[in-house]
Amino acid sequence: MSQVWNFGAGPAMLPPPVMERIREEWLDFGGMGVSLVEISHRSREFQAVLDEAKDLFRELTGLPENYRILFIHGGARMQFAALPMNLAGRSPSRTCLYVESGNFAKIANRDAVPYADVRVIASSADCSYARLPEVDPEKIDPQAAYLHLTSNNTVFGTQWQQFPDSGDVPLVTDQTSEILGRRLDFSRFGLVYAGLQKNLGPAGMALVVVRDDLLGSADEKTPLLLNYTRAAEDDSLTNTTNTFAIYVVKLVLEWMRQQGGLDVIEARNRQKAARLYRVIDAGDFYRGCAAVEHRSIMNVTFTLPTPELEAAFLAEAGAAGLYALKGHRALGGVRASIYNPMPLDGVEALAQFMEEFARRNG
Amino acid sequence: MSQVWNFGAGPAMLPPPVMERIREEWLDFGGMGVSLVEISHRSREFQAVLDEAKDLFRELTGLPENYRILFIHGGARMQFAALPMNLAGRSPSRTCLYVESGNFAKIANRDAVPYADVRVIASSADCSYARLPEVDPEKIDPQAAYLHLTSNNTVFGTQWQQFPDSGDVPLVTDQTSEILGRRLDFSRFGLVYAGLQKNLGPAGMALVVVRDDLLGSADEKTPLLLNYTRAAEDDSLTNTTNTFAIYVVKLVLEWMRQQGGLDVIEARNRQKAARLYRVIDAGDFYRGCAAVEHRSIMNVTFTLPTPELEAAFLAEAGAAGLYALKGHRALGGVRASIYNPMPLDGVEALAQFMEEFARRNG
Repeated sequence: MSQVWNFGAGPAMLPPPVMERIREEWLDFGGMGVSLVEISHRSREFQAVLDEAKDLFRELTGLPENYRILFIHGGARMQFAALPMNLAGRSPSRTCLYVESGNFAKIANRDAVPYADVRVIASSADCSYARLPEVDPEKIDPQAAYLHLTSNNTVFGTQWQQFPDSGDVPLVTDQTSEILGRRLDFSRFGLVYAGLQKNLGPAGMALVVVRDDLLGSADEKTPLLLNYTRAAEDDSLTNTTNTFAIYVVKLVLEWMRQQGGLDVIEARNRQKAARLYRVIDAGDFYRGCAAVEHRSIMNVTFTLPTPELEAAFLAEAGAAGLYALKGHRALGGVRASIYNPMPLDGVEALAQFMEEFARRNG
Repeated sequence: MSQVWNFGAGPAMLPPPVMERIREEWLDFGGMGVSLVEISHRSREFQAVLDEAKDLFRELTGLPENYRILFIHGGARMQFAALPMNLAGRSPSRTCLYVESGNFAKIANRDAVPYADVRVIASSADCSYARLPEVDPEKIDPQAAYLHLTSNNTVFGTQWQQFPDSGDVPLVTDQTSEILGRRLDFSRFGLVYAGLQKNLGPAGMALVVVRDDLLGSADEKTPLLLNYTRAAEDDSLTNTTNTFAIYVVKLVLEWMRQQGGLDVIEARNRQKAARLYRVIDAGDFYRGCAAVEHRSIMNVTFTLPTPELEAAFLAEAGAAGLYALKGHRALGGVRASIYNPMPLDGVEALAQFMEEFARRNG
């Protein structure tokens, strides 16, 4: 096959050395003569994988000791329900605050409605989520169970640079499309969750990082496998876990350490995004979808002068090995998802294609 | 590596040709230049995988048209909660009937308690689940939402040969440890579910087969991703699904077809089980855990005369490449899980080892 650069938003590309490693040990994990997917989740060999994944996450992020790392079935969308089921009970009125900054932020608050008194305290729906909304501190009810926001908006390509001060109300962030893409101070958050399928691994599971004091408040009707407290007690092994996903996460985190850690990765991510935004800003041909000061370093979204040019751009890009650049169905346009595994070379190939396409069609 | 035969109860061995195929196309799925795990769950290429998995399942089982095939995050244990959340509302009194025939059957009814008026109408706890309980037809309340039983009890090695007649009350079966291991008439069941990790694929997901008329009764607080009706509407793609798991299921079902289909597989499974039970019944050295008339063709459980001999058996078997024979922590002893992917050769190797071990130590 010729070189393909995969700009898919998720399930997204994984680091090539990780993919090679999975293939190498696919039939024989650690000399056991069987595959990692064929061994028990309660074997010492799998426990070592799980432990290493957690240790690496802690090491890479500097996660404080009073946070637990959980792996829960189902991706971020499952968390949209699990979160209020676990935490709404902390508020006497079951009040949960939501910031609506994009497509998934909106779904998150809608999915929470059966379990909580959901209050949307800030929204940028009026500008079609091209910007992040301002959060009025006055609207943060100190009795609320939590304040939820989506730290990077995959569809619109916006990303919070500074998080609102929520005082004693735990700040909960959906970091699905940016987890470990930049250094963040986890002590600012009460809870962080992320579907694995962008920066961490394959689809079907979420990583949940939760501060100890937020455990213990789950509703009685929370399905056991969505109960954070139980997951913490059982070290994410209440039932047969998705062993393959956790194994890939471990390999991805090892790869991150080998690359030099989070700061090196973040610097490279900033360099990648800057390269694409420079092309967008170089003329009138491409137009960025996100407000400049809220631009994401993970998802770069833009439009072309006409729908016909967009269609031609996507078709020619595909033919040139630049895969999965079509924008989300909720927004259209073009989206380049450049998560941690995307190397500089891939971004450079796209940038040069964009420059050349603009010259020919501008 | 030397030959290893994996008798693990799950995650269990997968068919070697399937494992080879996954490795071959790991870096380049269908000539796309990217891996199956790196493409969108909404791509036409993945949709084709999902469609083929469903078509194959329907073809292999002869599943009637009025049943839907769903893939739900989280394995069978997630279904222990999802089932009553989806179906208890069909009964005015939320009555759900359970047969307690083993470890997971017991957990299934316990996990249902927050959502239903759970009635255990038959139990074989009094004989430590060595037998299957009798179901008294008088106890089947016609107003009940469903009657649940575990068709194969992984831990104790028992398997229902004939299912109780539940009249108009839908019979729900957890077939995790036997799905597609023998021909069953699916029209007998209202709903069938199975974690993938024994006969179908990797861990982390369940296949749910549900009769159309049972949809539409989910509680309002059912998490969206556990709502069967929504999953049916969205063809299991409400959120980013576990694409890898569904891909492996498709390959396993293709392999089953290539093997000659369900009847060929069933005949081989019966032959495999019979070989091991013959060794057990040949003398007094091994003692089968399950009542003879309720023996499973999937999980063969037995004990040795002393704990010391059991420990020696497991150690020597491991050294001989017979892997993961230790019984479940709830029962102890020895368990050989011989699901569809286990070939006759593997069973023959174990049988000969057992004969030889008995000769030396009997």
